[in-house]
Amino acid sequence: MQDEYLKSDPWSIIEEGFDKDRVKSSESIFSIGNGHMGQRANFEEGYSGATFQGSYIAGVYYPDKTRVGWWKNGYPEYFAKVLNAPNWIGIDVWVNGEALDLNTCKKVDHFRRELNMKEGWYRRSFKATLPNGLETEVKIVRFLSLDLDEVGAIRFEITPTDADVEVAFHPYLDSGITNEDTNWDDKFWNTTQISSKENQAFIESHTLRTNFEVCTFMESHLFLNGRPLNKIPSEEKEALRVAHKFVQPAKKGETLALHKFGGYTVSRNHKASELVGAAKSSLKRAVDLGFEALLEQQKQAWARIWEMADITIEGDVKAQQGIRFNIFQLNQTYLGEDSRLNIGPKGFTGEKYGGSTYWDTEAYCIPFYMATKNQKVARNLLKYRYNHLEKAIENAQKLGFTNGAALYPMVTMNGEESHNEWEITFEEIHRNGAIAFAIFNYFRYTGDYSYIPEMGLEVLIAISRFWHQRANFSEPKGKYVILGVTGPNEYENNVNNNWYTNYVGKWCIDYTLRQLQKVKDGFSEDYDRVIGKTRLTDDETAQWQKVAGNMYFPYSEEHQVFLQQDGFLDKELVTVENLPTSQRPINQKWSWDRILRSPYIKQADILQGFYFFEDHFTMKELEKHFDFYEPFTVHESSLSPCVHAIQAAKLNRMEQAYRFYLRTSRLDLDDYNREVEEGLHITSMAGTWMSIVEGFGGMRILDDKLSFTPRIPEQWESYSFKINFRNRIVKVIVQKDKTEFSLDGKEEMSIRVNGNKVVLTPGKVVEV
Amino acid sequence: MQDEYLKSDPWSIIEEGFDKDRVKSSESIFSIGNGHMGQRANFEEGYSGATFQGSYIAGVYYPDKTRVGWWKNGYPEYFAKVLNAPNWIGIDVWVNGEALDLNTCKKVDHFRRELNMKEGWYRRSFKATLPNGLETEVKIVRFLSLDLDEVGAIRFEITPTDADVEVAFHPYLDSGITNEDTNWDDKFWNTTQISSKENQAFIESHTLRTNFEVCTFMESHLFLNGRPLNKIPSEEKEALRVAHKFVQPAKKGETLALHKFGGYTVSRNHKASELVGAAKSSLKRAVDLGFEALLEQQKQAWARIWEMADITIEGDVKAQQGIRFNIFQLNQTYLGEDSRLNIGPKGFTGEKYGGSTYWDTEAYCIPFYMATKNQKVARNLLKYRYNHLEKAIENAQKLGFTNGAALYPMVTMNGEESHNEWEITFEEIHRNGAIAFAIFNYFRYTGDYSYIPEMGLEVLIAISRFWHQRANFSEPKGKYVILGVTGPNEYENNVNNNWYTNYVGKWCIDYTLRQLQKVKDGFSEDYDRVIGKTRLTDDETAQWQKVAGNMYFPYSEEHQVFLQQDGFLDKELVTVENLPTSQRPINQKWSWDRILRSPYIKQADILQGFYFFEDHFTMKELEKHFDFYEPFTVHESSLSPCVHAIQAAKLNRMEQAYRFYLRTSRLDLDDYNREVEEGLHITSMAGTWMSIVEGFGGMRILDDKLSFTPRIPEQWESYSFKINFRNRIVKVIVQKDKTEFSLDGKEEMSIRVNGNKVVLTPGKVVEV
Repeated sequence: MQDEYLKSDPWSIIEEGFDKDRVKSSESIFSIGNGHMGQRANFEEGYSGATFQGSYIAGVYYPDKTRVGWWKNGYPEYFAKVLNAPNWIGIDVWVNGEALDLNTCKKVDHFRRELNMKEGWYRRSFKATLPNGLETEVKIVRFLSLDLDEVGAIRFEITPTDADVEVAFHPYLDSGITNEDTNWDDKFWNTTQISSKENQAFIESHTLRTNFEVCTFMESHLFLNGRPLNKIPSEEKEALRVAHKFVQPAKKGETLALHKFGGYTVSRNHKASELVGAAKSSLKRAVDLGFEALLEQQKQAWARIWEMADITIEGDVKAQQGIRFNIFQLNQTYLGEDSRLNIGPKGFTGEKYGGSTYWDTEAYCIPFYMATKNQKVARNLLKYRYNHLEKAIENAQKLGFTNGAALYPMVTMNGEESHNEWEITFEEIHRNGAIAFAIFNYFRYTGDYSYIPEMGLEVLIAISRFWHQRANFSEPKGKYVILGVTGPNEYENNVNNNWYTNYVGKWCIDYTLRQLQKVKDGFSEDYDRVIGKTRLTDDETAQWQKVAGNMYFPYSEEHQVFLQQDGFLDKELVTVENLPTSQRPINQKWSWDRILRSPYIKQADILQGFYFFEDHFTMKELEKHFDFYEPFTVHESSLSPCVHAIQAAKLNRMEQAYRFYLRTSRLDLDDYNREVEEGLHITSMAGTWMSIVEGFGGMRILDDKLSFTPRIPEQWESYSFKINFRNRIVKVIVQKDKTEFSLDGKEEMSIRVNGNKVVLTPGKVVEV
Repeated sequence: MQDEYLKSDPWSIIEEGFDKDRVKSSESIFSIGNGHMGQRANFEEGYSGATFQGSYIAGVYYPDKTRVGWWKNGYPEYFAKVLNAPNWIGIDVWVNGEALDLNTCKKVDHFRRELNMKEGWYRRSFKATLPNGLETEVKIVRFLSLDLDEVGAIRFEITPTDADVEVAFHPYLDSGITNEDTNWDDKFWNTTQISSKENQAFIESHTLRTNFEVCTFMESHLFLNGRPLNKIPSEEKEALRVAHKFVQPAKKGETLALHKFGGYTVSRNHKASELVGAAKSSLKRAVDLGFEALLEQQKQAWARIWEMADITIEGDVKAQQGIRFNIFQLNQTYLGEDSRLNIGPKGFTGEKYGGSTYWDTEAYCIPFYMATKNQKVARNLLKYRYNHLEKAIENAQKLGFTNGAALYPMVTMNGEESHNEWEITFEEIHRNGAIAFAIFNYFRYTGDYSYIPEMGLEVLIAISRFWHQRANFSEPKGKYVILGVTGPNEYENNVNNNWYTNYVGKWCIDYTLRQLQKVKDGFSEDYDRVIGKTRLTDDETAQWQKVAGNMYFPYSEEHQVFLQQDGFLDKELVTVENLPTSQRPINQKWSWDRILRSPYIKQADILQGFYFFEDHFTMKELEKHFDFYEPFTVHESSLSPCVHAIQAAKLNRMEQAYRFYLRTSRLDLDDYNREVEEGLHITSMAGTWMSIVEGFGGMRILDDKLSFTPRIPEQWESYSFKINFRNRIVKVIVQKDKTEFSLDGKEEMSIRVNGNKVVLTPGKVVEV
């Protein structure tokens, strides 16, 4: 499955050579984003070959009418779809009247792409022989500014190498775009105004139904051998498109460069009436700085991110490149400053999967953002769910729940459900648990309790109400059971008593009851407000307690393990090792019923519970469950290997842990699943970070303190990472024979390393 | 839910008064068919109101590309769709240049429809006041000839009542038709040739992909006061349409009549090159006879059907009308002469549900056709499945089965699967059992063993192979289990050890093994052929035996009943009685997960097994299971009440049996489910027949002999039915205090009545 197409490099992703069959894949891998907007690595100039165009604006979506084979009550009527936005990057290029199009060139030499992750820019260069025989060298640099986050910048350079020529640049804006992923081929955008003056142009359009108003804008300047030509282009307007036309002679060896600035202003961030004005002011700032200075700022901005978020690995360039790619993409996707946004599974790299928010955010992404940014970012992610609480209550009502019970959607953009497989939408209810767990985890990590009385308690009450109502008493078992669910292992559907679901359901109630007491004791005003609002009574909590206290957990005496669900042992228990490789991946080779009745596990299920609630179980128990379940696990979810890497490392099985790490860290770079052209797996990238920090580094919070159990894969010389723990930066360098810890700030901090107390003093490196 | 819209009448369905909101429903109810083609009760003249156009040709379908929300491996790429065929019935009518359109008339008086089931015709009459104020009386009679089964006939009469007028009749053919039910708005038909000469016109078209070639044809003649005018119309051709134009003055009180003959010739029955010729010869036969004589033949043909199939009920007109409607529709849908055809769930009355064949055919329809026609008809239905065996083996292969195992499709037209809900398509595997059961049932009823060595044994072997492979050994249970199925009760999905499925699976193997022995002993040539073809070995059958002999059946000691599936008792066992009526029907009120974890049963499941294998269980056991499960049964499948009527009658609970009977017999006439506009529930109509004959009449085959346990609902004076048992016609008249039996033919026949032997002598009525 390994693929050596991309060059190994510690800081850059590099592609060399032009391969038409790889264009769509590379468009995903070389995507750029700045949290506010994103852009697949589509060519600026026209390209008549196969391409998947994608320009995305954070938080701008369209509710596409649901299309299914067979309707089930409770399905959402509309899905929030990730939306391809008007094109601002386009620059048609002609040389002596011949279009530059890599698909029709006689020859393309020295084609090279580089995504410089350290500095946050993307460069493409090549030497093209046009159909008319003319040879030109082309070099394009593009980036989306972190500082001016509504602006992207392109420098498109062309040098004729064998003749004097006339070059025409037609930078354009185009709102006549479509979505690849649409259920009814609806029109998603309506364009209301196109304006153009001198070097600037603006297209005002809005999304249908959701009515997000967007101004797509551009301004271009022409340079000859680095010297501004101050040309005013002619313009060409069509119904959904506006182009500017620059025509300029260039002698052999001279370099013509078009600097194009463009991007979006959006009614989410401005008054609708002021979008063009805001665009003009963004353009002014960018143009005043100029391409080079803006790029310099970009490098500095990314340096600040890397300063905190970088993980170094010595002795393994591929692993180094992989982890940086993951950290880079996470930061391109979400910067944590806007509590209306979240971390889409494909980020700004594709359209697949409606909605932007999965339980991935709570289970995998929040730990990354908590440790590499500040607590405000994680708090924004929690606040996002608080803001969706009412919708989650409505969602539960659609499924028959009452009294303020909440079921958070499986997939969402705006709080409404955006998925429609009944076995997932209605039954993968454990997601409610991850949302409560994130509240617990946030406090555990940051020590900031304030979220709970202010917002979290309401979320917890609504979630506990759901679990209480969802369980029912089984006469034969004399216990409460939870029937008809899909656990984290989506390769079993509609099962009874999925251990993980029952466990997290019980835990939610227990945890909520403890927080109720804590808020009552310490924040009586908040307590009164919340109780008044939710009308929670002692009677009701007593009912909850009955359910949580008598929850059923399937267990096998013979194997001494909890059972993933009631019927697990009835299956034909053939391990993955004994499954012919011709049958894998089973999700491509087998029909769904066969997968369901097989023992094969898509992603950590019971082991996910052991990861969340690690201190509830002994190492012996972990080992038993790992040894029982991992042999049945096919890891066909991108979220599976990371949890297993962490658990294997904890069991000191470093060889196995390293194998799991490799599988998660280069999933997209090496295109394990042959689908990278659809976009990158953004959320699982946080799992890769966890594999190193929590897995190899063994980072935990124990008794309110940072704790480490550092281990290192044999293949590595050393690795290092930084942690922001309660606004103190701890740096950890793990080597084969020792680990170095250092600390910023002024005060000492005591941590635990391999179970022993270690005191860190700022400015002093401690070796353990 | 009762609805008094239609008039009670023993032989006709009658609607009085024009209600635009009922047009689509009445279009379903007044549908006509002759086994070869069918026609919804669409108006001949133009109608600008809401209508659902439907003209259908038996066996002509289109494979529509599957459209789903989420694709699962194994789903069929295409679905065979019931296809709306070119329109042959259309007659545009103008009076003094004003179009006759019931939607725009100033007034519509005396609107009346009658579907005369006894004679097989449909009449519509009304008095219309046109927008121009002219008043006319209109009377239309239409039928699809049973004798000339490619021909339909229309007599359209119009009488001006207040002025002398000029009437224009434009009979037309139109192939520019669409399907209401289409996944991608594909074009289904391509028209290649339109020809017209004098009174005749022909449109040649073919279905795309399947390439069924069809000639749609018409010939029209004009009459004044019953006298032929021998007019030659002018013609008007468009791309997909041809019309003939008759213009004729009519004095006040005179009646103008257009006789239109039309229909289809199809490449399924003729050489493609001879379709127009065949159409001409059909037209000639019809026109030579004339409308009146053809109608007379129609009455006689239906009299022959009723002679055998009628059930009379004295003292309950609604029940009488209901059972006749069911028998009439079954005969309109399928006459049993073509083993390539089957009984579609909507017959010729709508498009809903792709495909035409469900397990309904084997479970419900075959008993009706066996008893009311001759054994050849039932044998054709069995042969249909034999012809699809290879496709069923391919279908199983797609799901991972090997070695010639067959899984018959859930829904099919041509042997390929035409459904795509994984929980049904892949998991409702019990359908294989019904197909084997029908083979058993056919022999039990007809005594004709020949089907088994000739064809049935191969089907049985392939089915047994499936069950053998589908079961797996459960270590904890020490038995073979069948995991991940949907039983007949579709309100539980992906359950383990559905009792019915396990039972029918085991029975299939046992039965196949017995037939193998029997064929070996009695038909050694067939045996050798089949063994050679299937490569069945003793080793393999020994493996089958192991599975069948050690099948697991969930059982509750406490309740002394078999459990519908492993987890049934863990549910919250609240009976239907205690379910608020506001919550019903649950399939409209509840989300799917809630239905699944509820104890509510859609249709007989364990009781279906007790119906099939009645002699395997005691009356005491039946009573226990009926009393345990019926209280949880919501009967939201049209196939549920009939089995319960039979079982309740057997338990001598006649009041309850009668309530179940009512629910099944007038399902469409009273539109219980508010969906009759989509078409009729054809297959469940056979269940209604079973309710009377097997339920109230207690008909069974015991020890190779007919047996009856006659009972009568309190509401009825008497009822009667006839049975063709091995080419002997037995007539049964059940009265309150006695039952009369009579027999045709020459020889005596001994039957059992209430367990006692009774000898019937031809020509003599025996009272019991």
